[in-house]
Amino acid sequence: MSKEQILVDIEPLSRRILFASEKSLYEFLINNNIRIKSLCGGLGTCGKCKLLIQKGIEYVSPPSEKEYNFIINNELDKGWRLACQTSLNINKFKEIKENEQIQLRIFLPEDLLLEDFKILTYGLNKEAEINPAIKKIYTIVEKPTLDKPLPDLERINNSMLNLTEKKSKFSFNFDLLNLLPKILRESDHRITLTIWDDEEIIACEPGETVENNFGIAFDIGTTTIVGYLINLNTGKIHSVASKLNPQTAFGEDVVTRMTFIKDNEDGLNKLNSVVINALNDLVLRTCNRARIQPSQIYEATVVGNTVMHHIFLGLDPINIGLSPYIPIVQHGLNVKSKNLNLNINNHGNVYTLPIIAGFVGADTMGVILSSHVDEEKDLTLIIDIGTNGEIILGNHKIIATGSCAAGSALEGAHIKDGMRAAAGAIDSIKIDPDDFSVSYTTIKNKKPVGLCGSGLIDTVAEMLKAKILTRSGSFNKDCIEHKRFIKHGKTSEFVIAYKDENNLNRDITISQNDIREIQMAKAAFYSGTRVILHNSNFKDEIKQVFLAGAFGNYINKENAKFIGMIPDISDEKIFQIGNAAGIGAQNCLINKELRNKAELLLKNIKYIEIATKKEFQKEYAEAMYFPHLNLKYFPSLKDYAEIPKR
Amino acid sequence: MSKEQILVDIEPLSRRILFASEKSLYEFLINNNIRIKSLCGGLGTCGKCKLLIQKGIEYVSPPSEKEYNFIINNELDKGWRLACQTSLNINKFKEIKENEQIQLRIFLPEDLLLEDFKILTYGLNKEAEINPAIKKIYTIVEKPTLDKPLPDLERINNSMLNLTEKKSKFSFNFDLLNLLPKILRESDHRITLTIWDDEEIIACEPGETVENNFGIAFDIGTTTIVGYLINLNTGKIHSVASKLNPQTAFGEDVVTRMTFIKDNEDGLNKLNSVVINALNDLVLRTCNRARIQPSQIYEATVVGNTVMHHIFLGLDPINIGLSPYIPIVQHGLNVKSKNLNLNINNHGNVYTLPIIAGFVGADTMGVILSSHVDEEKDLTLIIDIGTNGEIILGNHKIIATGSCAAGSALEGAHIKDGMRAAAGAIDSIKIDPDDFSVSYTTIKNKKPVGLCGSGLIDTVAEMLKAKILTRSGSFNKDCIEHKRFIKHGKTSEFVIAYKDENNLNRDITISQNDIREIQMAKAAFYSGTRVILHNSNFKDEIKQVFLAGAFGNYINKENAKFIGMIPDISDEKIFQIGNAAGIGAQNCLINKELRNKAELLLKNIKYIEIATKKEFQKEYAEAMYFPHLNLKYFPSLKDYAEIPKR
Repeated sequence: MSKEQILVDIEPLSRRILFASEKSLYEFLINNNIRIKSLCGGLGTCGKCKLLIQKGIEYVSPPSEKEYNFIINNELDKGWRLACQTSLNINKFKEIKENEQIQLRIFLPEDLLLEDFKILTYGLNKEAEINPAIKKIYTIVEKPTLDKPLPDLERINNSMLNLTEKKSKFSFNFDLLNLLPKILRESDHRITLTIWDDEEIIACEPGETVENNFGIAFDIGTTTIVGYLINLNTGKIHSVASKLNPQTAFGEDVVTRMTFIKDNEDGLNKLNSVVINALNDLVLRTCNRARIQPSQIYEATVVGNTVMHHIFLGLDPINIGLSPYIPIVQHGLNVKSKNLNLNINNHGNVYTLPIIAGFVGADTMGVILSSHVDEEKDLTLIIDIGTNGEIILGNHKIIATGSCAAGSALEGAHIKDGMRAAAGAIDSIKIDPDDFSVSYTTIKNKKPVGLCGSGLIDTVAEMLKAKILTRSGSFNKDCIEHKRFIKHGKTSEFVIAYKDENNLNRDITISQNDIREIQMAKAAFYSGTRVILHNSNFKDEIKQVFLAGAFGNYINKENAKFIGMIPDISDEKIFQIGNAAGIGAQNCLINKELRNKAELLLKNIKYIEIATKKEFQKEYAEAMYFPHLNLKYFPSLKDYAEIPKR
Repeated sequence: MSKEQILVDIEPLSRRILFASEKSLYEFLINNNIRIKSLCGGLGTCGKCKLLIQKGIEYVSPPSEKEYNFIINNELDKGWRLACQTSLNINKFKEIKENEQIQLRIFLPEDLLLEDFKILTYGLNKEAEINPAIKKIYTIVEKPTLDKPLPDLERINNSMLNLTEKKSKFSFNFDLLNLLPKILRESDHRITLTIWDDEEIIACEPGETVENNFGIAFDIGTTTIVGYLINLNTGKIHSVASKLNPQTAFGEDVVTRMTFIKDNEDGLNKLNSVVINALNDLVLRTCNRARIQPSQIYEATVVGNTVMHHIFLGLDPINIGLSPYIPIVQHGLNVKSKNLNLNINNHGNVYTLPIIAGFVGADTMGVILSSHVDEEKDLTLIIDIGTNGEIILGNHKIIATGSCAAGSALEGAHIKDGMRAAAGAIDSIKIDPDDFSVSYTTIKNKKPVGLCGSGLIDTVAEMLKAKILTRSGSFNKDCIEHKRFIKHGKTSEFVIAYKDENNLNRDITISQNDIREIQMAKAAFYSGTRVILHNSNFKDEIKQVFLAGAFGNYINKENAKFIGMIPDISDEKIFQIGNAAGIGAQNCLINKELRNKAELLLKNIKYIEIATKKEFQKEYAEAMYFPHLNLKYFPSLKDYAEIPKR
């Protein structure tokens, strides 16, 4: 195989880079401008460049003697390695078939990352051109005289017109005017101006401060919020921080949060202020790590679903929850940070990406921008799996989108032993078809606590392969008396982890109801895709699939296809593209032209209200089967020949 | 004579209109869209159209029988008349020479004015085209459907694009977004939008409210503030209110106010908040009279000198007081009303006219715009006499300006018995050259309290004509023993009004020092004009003079020339153009194009720092003489041949 087939996901940066011909992971990271700690420069003598291979450990070289010096056996077993000592396992690669693509996932602990690593943006190693909306310019302003007694602002403007290509004067933030006399006179007329969008002077600082030019990209998920602090002169990410969306306390999903707002007079205020507080906390944390001040952040970009977007802006999302599901605003907005109480520079700008519809938000616009689906020749399906599910179908001609109420089961909601992807979550499973014995892995190798999304998909797929489930999703009557099933009143549950394997003092099980939840979720994605396809003018078949979102990145893509969640596309055409929404926000931060592009794209994006289409019910019912009522749609899944239908 | 020679000043509207061939003042006012109270429609049977002839009573018809029915003799003597019964006195006019221009001044009491009189703007009866920055548009917005689920703002924008010539979408005040869902749905999608500058939607109201479209023009003088409430659809003034600038409590002139700001940490805040409170009071008073709400005022325009301008905006004027006298900003500003705490519509705009220099402010720009000096072929001198004095020299090619510290003596400052133009102020004087007996008039015919500016100028001119003063400004030694002089220690004072004529229990007098103050003021204007003329590229002589400002409007222009305050121009070429600064603010309110014009004019206005020019001291010293050291500059003033030089 060629090395171009090896994709490396780098966490927590949500970046995916093709492995080139580097000798070690250390060299690979350095070549890609991800600077990590190392005292010895890659000689294996300092032991600082320790990272975790989360996926694909079998494709890397076995631990070297030097690694044994710095890493204890237990950690080596879990996948910890020194970046400088870890190369690709050439022997292993020989086994890989032509056209097969393999993926590694490496995790860089926070203390490993140095402060400036360059942002790599697009899913497949394309960099965004650096052309931020925020530019800083140092200038020496002419001093006034009796013969030329020009006011402060006019002298500054003249000085700027000399330095830039601009023909007409810059606009000026009114709040700054009163600062000018002091700053000019105390700095001997040497100042640094911060320009927004080549148009407005939004900050004025004494002396030369061009270097201190930062932005922050926020991805406000229903469940998780991430902030990426980026140097706008270089495009480098300086630090990343994330936290649980504190709105979760008021409702797990957007619908319950909208209900909270409807039922509580102060509900919108409450939800708005908790999310703003969370963002301000991320500002502080990323700034502390990068050793800068929040006032050095002049712009924030924001993605999020439409409800998150509205609540963040303090806009009432109430009509999004009522047919015909109408947001207040669609296009991208620029709002002064202080109007939003966002603790970046007082006069900073906050840009929210445009939203597409009530249930297809700015996050989806971020996915579209960062995936470059609008440049793909082949018809591409993108599934963004978060607390809500969004479907994007598109190529260089048209893009169609829709949403499906599918995500929250895959985050563990409504599943008896479901949970989010946290320590102790069972994230992968194998079931022995002979004795139904279960082997699994858990996040951080803790004792199992429950099943997260990827574990749930594996569970269903493995139960099908072991014929414990029928294609209609029922427990196979021939198996139900097996000792792995336990009775709960009238119903039976399949045991994933026995009481003695965990600390819960009870078995971790899968119920018939749990299976139904997964079935509904996967049917929603598949039928949604079909409805969008039928209601658009695409002439081609779907040729490739991008799985976006943290969850999309961690599931077993073969199993996702096996249960019929995504179409029957060959595995090497299914790509896990990471947090594409967050990367979209990053891209818009370092390249303002993408904001115009987003507005233009809006005109070519067709939104389809899936659930109201007449064929939806039939499509949905048929997709409830594993993988589908019509096996002809999944010709490659030969195993199904032996799995009973009901 | 032709009636085109009769100018009528209409107070308190600060308007000057040429009298045409109307039969009565009632007809004249109605023809000029100044609607006044009348039940009988001009028949003289209701007695409602009572007004005051303040100047030129000799040119109007004597009281008719009908007037005796409604007005008591005492009032008739003071000049009160019924508008419908008052015509021009044809016999009197026959006495007037060809080319002589005469002026009437009429005063309309507040309760006489009906709510809509049309704004006449330019000094000489030119109307400003109605093209306000604020336009209101009523629209029925498309309702959203499942097939076309466009967000609220985008549907509004589409609706507006259909109604206007605009090609790209309107920008939208962010603070309004949250109001849209409710307003749209409660008004059945019928709304009225307020557009600013054909660009930004700044207000959204349910139903059809196009009629309610108001603006307010403010003239913030050092001493007096005036507000004009104007209907922006029609250009009509609905009400006018004025009050003393409460900053006066912190200093009489701009220099002492700047000192107060420098010496008091909270000084700027204090001065800013008292002026804002005063403006808000004018908003309430004008709104109450017009029976509208402050929220129906969407824009305010503001003129004022540079220090008033800065303090109003909350900008520190400190550097205006220090050489080289630098303001913070020159160009016109648009600021949201709520940033200034101005109590008009929450999202309203406040436009301040551009300023020219530290001591030539937005008020002067208002004068330039409303006087149309930039369209005059003849070189024109404009003197704006307020608490500060500004000089404008210009024609259609260039404009040059400067300021002189001349005004405050003419407002009574530093004059023993000086006072502002208020009730009881002596405003005109005659001195009998034979016995030095003094006759005078007072404002509102009250017992005399002191002398206001026009009275002071008359006093000096009359004392010169009576040879009580020498051309150098000293009391004539031959007169000083006259009984009209009284001793005050070593100095003598000339009595204007004896103790028994007033209620002060002392004589009202003019001292040698008072004469010096007037001398310095008049010398400042005359020498300032000369310095500007020398330092500009004008090739012509001054052909006409405009006297602007309330004071300029009330002085005896012949006497102003007699004392040498203005050049020796024939009387019919000296025009009193009223509150030209305030009219400039009104014009900018009803025609936004004038704001662009003001910015363009800025480039052609030369500012001259008079006091720093080398010839200034000599010019000033020579101008201290009455009318000037060199009598050749005032060839028409034959009387001076007999007035002693020293």
